[in-house]
Amino acid sequence: STELETPTIQKVPHIFYSFAAKLLVESGLNPVLLEARNRVGGRTYTVQNKETKWVDLGGAYIGPTQNRILRIAKQYGVKTYKVNEDESLVHYVKGKSYPFKGPFPPMWNPLAYLDYNNLWRTMDKMGMEIPKEAPWRAPHAEEWDKITMQQLIDQICWTRSARRFATLFVNVNVTSEPHEVSALWFLWYVKQCGGTMRIFSTTNGGQERKFAGGANQISQAMARELGDRVKLGRAVYSIDQTGDLVEVRTVNEEIYKAKYVILAIPPSLNLKIHFNPELPPLRNQLIHRVPMGSVIKCMVYYKENFWRKKGYCGSMVIEEEEAPIGLTLDDTKPDGSVPAIMGFILARKSRKLASLTKEERKRRICEIYARVLGTEEALNPVHYEEKNWCEEEYSGGCYTAYFPPGIMTQYGRVLREPVGRLYFAGTETATEWSGYMEGAVQAGERASREVLLRSKIQIWQSEPESLDVPARPFVTTFWERNLPSVGGVFKFMGVSSFLALTGFMCLVVRRSEVYQS
Amino acid sequence: STELETPTIQKVPHIFYSFAAKLLVESGLNPVLLEARNRVGGRTYTVQNKETKWVDLGGAYIGPTQNRILRIAKQYGVKTYKVNEDESLVHYVKGKSYPFKGPFPPMWNPLAYLDYNNLWRTMDKMGMEIPKEAPWRAPHAEEWDKITMQQLIDQICWTRSARRFATLFVNVNVTSEPHEVSALWFLWYVKQCGGTMRIFSTTNGGQERKFAGGANQISQAMARELGDRVKLGRAVYSIDQTGDLVEVRTVNEEIYKAKYVILAIPPSLNLKIHFNPELPPLRNQLIHRVPMGSVIKCMVYYKENFWRKKGYCGSMVIEEEEAPIGLTLDDTKPDGSVPAIMGFILARKSRKLASLTKEERKRRICEIYARVLGTEEALNPVHYEEKNWCEEEYSGGCYTAYFPPGIMTQYGRVLREPVGRLYFAGTETATEWSGYMEGAVQAGERASREVLLRSKIQIWQSEPESLDVPARPFVTTFWERNLPSVGGVFKFMGVSSFLALTGFMCLVVRRSEVYQS
Repeated sequence: STELETPTIQKVPHIFYSFAAKLLVESGLNPVLLEARNRVGGRTYTVQNKETKWVDLGGAYIGPTQNRILRIAKQYGVKTYKVNEDESLVHYVKGKSYPFKGPFPPMWNPLAYLDYNNLWRTMDKMGMEIPKEAPWRAPHAEEWDKITMQQLIDQICWTRSARRFATLFVNVNVTSEPHEVSALWFLWYVKQCGGTMRIFSTTNGGQERKFAGGANQISQAMARELGDRVKLGRAVYSIDQTGDLVEVRTVNEEIYKAKYVILAIPPSLNLKIHFNPELPPLRNQLIHRVPMGSVIKCMVYYKENFWRKKGYCGSMVIEEEEAPIGLTLDDTKPDGSVPAIMGFILARKSRKLASLTKEERKRRICEIYARVLGTEEALNPVHYEEKNWCEEEYSGGCYTAYFPPGIMTQYGRVLREPVGRLYFAGTETATEWSGYMEGAVQAGERASREVLLRSKIQIWQSEPESLDVPARPFVTTFWERNLPSVGGVFKFMGVSSFLALTGFMCLVVRRSEVYQS
Repeated sequence: STELETPTIQKVPHIFYSFAAKLLVESGLNPVLLEARNRVGGRTYTVQNKETKWVDLGGAYIGPTQNRILRIAKQYGVKTYKVNEDESLVHYVKGKSYPFKGPFPPMWNPLAYLDYNNLWRTMDKMGMEIPKEAPWRAPHAEEWDKITMQQLIDQICWTRSARRFATLFVNVNVTSEPHEVSALWFLWYVKQCGGTMRIFSTTNGGQERKFAGGANQISQAMARELGDRVKLGRAVYSIDQTGDLVEVRTVNEEIYKAKYVILAIPPSLNLKIHFNPELPPLRNQLIHRVPMGSVIKCMVYYKENFWRKKGYCGSMVIEEEEAPIGLTLDDTKPDGSVPAIMGFILARKSRKLASLTKEERKRRICEIYARVLGTEEALNPVHYEEKNWCEEEYSGGCYTAYFPPGIMTQYGRVLREPVGRLYFAGTETATEWSGYMEGAVQAGERASREVLLRSKIQIWQSEPESLDVPARPFVTTFWERNLPSVGGVFKFMGVSSFLALTGFMCLVVRRSEVYQS
């Protein structure tokens, strides 16, 4: 076994763990980064080949209010470009395509419209009650954590179309099913991304942009800067805090010694490590309770960008049980080359379709694109790329961890509470855009500051807005804010019907009186 | 690193993993058992000291229909004895104690009685639909898996007292909360233990007996028999199936090579191991999704068996949010020596009380015993033992794994599906008394037979009934089977009220007619 003495900091693998290390180096410390995989980037993964030039098989999208990741990208000279949303988006439901503009598909049925409007408004209003740094302290935390998001949807929504869309909204945002996740956790998740509009939008939202050349470039640039501090293929299997220095062992039989360790991995991957002494009871159980979501990311490449010619931007919101894909975005390169459509196979569907061959998945995806876009051109792809994140041992799934009912209020408070000389980063521990690259930066930098605490550094720091990608507020109309919910309408109609009926009955009685007298 | 060539079987630690090994040895194979801890027994753990003689800090109870563990115990000459239930049990609710006899506390309010009777009947009826070896194939599997047990309780129960008791029933049986677990999974769990009566009863049920001298004796006797095949302190951190033999590495830096490996550990502890090649996607995600329950087992020792003198057997069913303990049983030795009461701190309460000092927990436990038993004698214990299973790295919790909503139907089918040369045992993979010592035996023996399959052995074998501990059927009365539910009563009353009301209204109309004419 190799034995190194690095009297500073150890990092265990994860997407953008380098954020922690970078800040530490700048502060004069001497960290070592242990990466489980033979590549850096974790849940970001850019592949280069002649068919695609480059393709992000993992995390890719960034947008306004994600100021930390935008700052880092700028430092490394990685440019962003806007995802194409010039033409119409399409909403496919009950076998028909409806082109639309704006963040959400419109609803034409007035009852469905009220219901739909009320759904977003209610979720955002509930979110306002939830402290982003401590969701377990929300006034209704216990109550909301005891129900699944499915239960909340059933409570809020009166119409089947709103309920169906709410399911897709959960599937797309957290790659899990409404009945799998705590309502409290999901409301928190949406809130800490800036609300229903910000999280779901392309323009002015979480999917506004991509990095030209791929998201992985950022970790790669950092890794270059950090040089031989970055050690690949070093999955950590044990951490011993009983001695003067923390002892970290890797599967390739090396031993590293350090003053502190930052674990920048998903909470449940802490289980890959044998701890001495054992973790405290709450953390020991937390890491069994927060599974990773399920998604297969699929890119279909075409000779031509036929959808734009038909007036479609490439964004499809697909509601159909038999369709493999739930959401697509145009994935054509910013210069118009390599026409492609990116689509997600989400949650239940990823489990169902994982056993098919790659060829068969491609075929089914092209078929639904042909139906939604109304053209057989979609049936003739020139290339296909996919990545099933459920099979990755060192991610456990993607995009992020979810909290089943009852866990946030019972275990949430230990999510990033240090244990001896262990500190916890990873996007799951963030309080802004947790689950995203932005969250990974916030978490890595915060954990580094915790380690640097002895030098009296401000641990939690807010980030000034990116000048290049400013956020605009979402404007809601007077009617969106004040229209009644379906329940409200029914309540109102109930009162008026009652009055009407009473009136009618009086009339009948009086008539019969008249008749009888 | 030590390197051994054992061309047969490797076992990774777990309660009663020895069941697998024993059968293999008897079949002429040469297994090695790798145990993570420095003791055998896993979730059974017997401690000996002068205050207690011996005490089971982990799994302890056995009963009729658990024929496999009874057979093994008999082979090793370990005797069972009946848990004392001669005197009355006590049900403590709304601050009052109600002595009772029989498996469940009676309900005096007739509406509560109907509701309560209907709850057990409905759960057992639903259980009959669920195949114990494949709950995901139940006709309503999808529907029941999408709701939490809390939702099912709210659907079945009309009265607050039935709902409250149903919560305790879930807490006691699976050390988790009704809102944390899938209804399908919980119904399956109760069903594969033989139903609501069998699982909850002391006499004629899962808690009828204990092993004289402690449950750990069985693993210890097996370990003695297996001799130096049992290796303690060998937590496995990696399994490599890429070569001719499976290569298993342990934290003490040994390498074992074998033809096959049986993992007799809870599913989520599979995460402690780094796999090469990676596990298939469904199994890779399953092991993130089935957390272990939460319980602190507490034994209070007294100079005298004062409760028996008061006509209480020592069983208390305690419904009060502020009480630490939910269920107790007499833990006095069979000869009447070492008077003691065993109590469980369950689920939410174990999380809340884990941070107190041992002294403080003892004080609070004695206080509730004094209130329930109506005597200050309970305030003066002579000794106290406890074990918080939430802090055990190599159990993750106790008694067993639970399935949150949505997991059983999506991932259940890979629970014990072999992966290459890996086979899966552990009580979680059993189909009868899964979660109990009995399930561990069934699983260990079944996994061994899978390995022996090439010798054409019957993998799944039923077990003849133990002659010493026969099961008696539970007799339900005509009224229990046929009394209406509260809903039924209301439906009936609704119809009759409607008829009555209609009659009344006719009368009114006719009267006014009379008056007016």
